[in-house]
Amino acid sequence: MSDHSEAPVTPVEAYEPPYYVAVFTTVRTQDQSGYSETNARMEDLVKDVPGFLGMDHAQTPGGLGITVGYFRDADALTEWRNNAEHRAAQKRGQAEWYQSYTLHVAKVERSQGFTRG
Amino acid sequence: MSDHSEAPVTPVEAYEPPYYVAVFTTVRTQDQSGYSETNARMEDLVKDVPGFLGMDHAQTPGGLGITVGYFRDADALTEWRNNAEHRAAQKRGQAEWYQSYTLHVAKVERSQGFTRG
Repeated sequence: MSDHSEAPVTPVEAYEPPYYVAVFTTVRTQDQSGYSETNARMEDLVKDVPGFLGMDHAQTPGGLGITVGYFRDADALTEWRNNAEHRAAQKRGQAEWYQSYTLHVAKVERSQGFTRG
Repeated sequence: MSDHSEAPVTPVEAYEPPYYVAVFTTVRTQDQSGYSETNARMEDLVKDVPGFLGMDHAQTPGGLGITVGYFRDADALTEWRNNAEHRAAQKRGQAEWYQSYTLHVAKVERSQGFTRG
């Protein structure tokens, strides 16, 4: 057993290119009521998208959040982008939770993984 | 003046595609001696690469770190990848600082920014 209280963190693996990443960087507002529930719901929902490969998230306390979603192809991303519940969450995010954000959608050309032996 | 003790966080902007992102997700080891100094040096060094656009970083305490570097084109990324001091830092990272990491290099096709009015 580990001496950490949480499950070990494992980043999404380096898949064989091509695949897509959606890089979402956020600065939050002070009002985060309802955010956790919606975020958990989105994390569940995206798993149902065919071609969804995984998601990584890091959050500096009081600072920047970065979420990276990995998708097999552009169609998978389009399906996720058009999901009605996801669109409603985006609207609420703009209205309440985000001070600013940036989204970069990109096609992976090269990937590489390292794990300590 | 803000009531925050740190400068306001601003994510790297949504540039006009195409441009490149390098998504670097990391899980650290317990031994982080020398990491901060090397990381600061790399942050300085990458700014000298022609075509470097910016960098975002988020770190969940005790969890995942995500660094995203933004570059105008593949040549800029190649120059950074081949930088001798950067390569030495990568070697030391594998030997000492990283439990695991994944790198995804991708060409941005679409970007979008939002800032609260």
